[in-house]
Amino acid sequence: MDIVNLAESFEAIEEYWSPRLAAELNGQHVKLAKLRGEFDWHHHADADELFLVVDGALTIELRDEGDVTLGKGELCVVPAGVEHRPVATEEARVLLFEPAGTLNTGNVASERTVEEIERV
Amino acid sequence: MDIVNLAESFEAIEEYWSPRLAAELNGQHVKLAKLRGEFDWHHHADADELFLVVDGALTIELRDEGDVTLGKGELCVVPAGVEHRPVATEEARVLLFEPAGTLNTGNVASERTVEEIERV
Repeated sequence: MDIVNLAESFEAIEEYWSPRLAAELNGQHVKLAKLRGEFDWHHHADADELFLVVDGALTIELRDEGDVTLGKGELCVVPAGVEHRPVATEEARVLLFEPAGTLNTGNVASERTVEEIERV
Repeated sequence: MDIVNLAESFEAIEEYWSPRLAAELNGQHVKLAKLRGEFDWHHHADADELFLVVDGALTIELRDEGDVTLGKGELCVVPAGVEHRPVATEEARVLLFEPAGTLNTGNVASERTVEEIERV
């Protein structure tokens, strides 16, 4: 049974906005990503997406609602279909939980789209 | 969009072995539980179960394999059908991911079975 150490796994991630697979269960993926700067506006048509900030702070801008800012040890769920844009002024280390196959850029294809997620 | 602060939520949990619901998404539950002592041996017939230790340390005893011990910031997945028993010699604060409706005592009914999970 594999143990994933979050701190060691984040240290091994070099690229920003490039999620890596930490665990798979019940058709869902647990991903780890280092974020810094502004991501692309997007939504996930059929997938709710959970963000848990492990270190740093993350603002999730929402097109039709107020923004949400998560500090270390805080989580929220962006429901399916809600257009959002993650923004981190400093490096943020984030755990994501969402259905397997969910693309990081959702409905938008960009140079930051990760088609094949790699293990941490 | 609700923000869940893990530290504050754990502070609000008084009972050991009594998971509370932190978030629901894609038919899955994110639960928080304070653990201390030995739980009951059990398995979940159809549900993989993720344990992430937010604070403290947790040993997951496995009937047919070596035990697994998770420290703070470590996670693992116990696959469906694998008999296990969580043990925490000191208080452990644990985040669980599993399908909605998964019972904490799995296939075993005991006085610690939580039928209706409450929100944190």
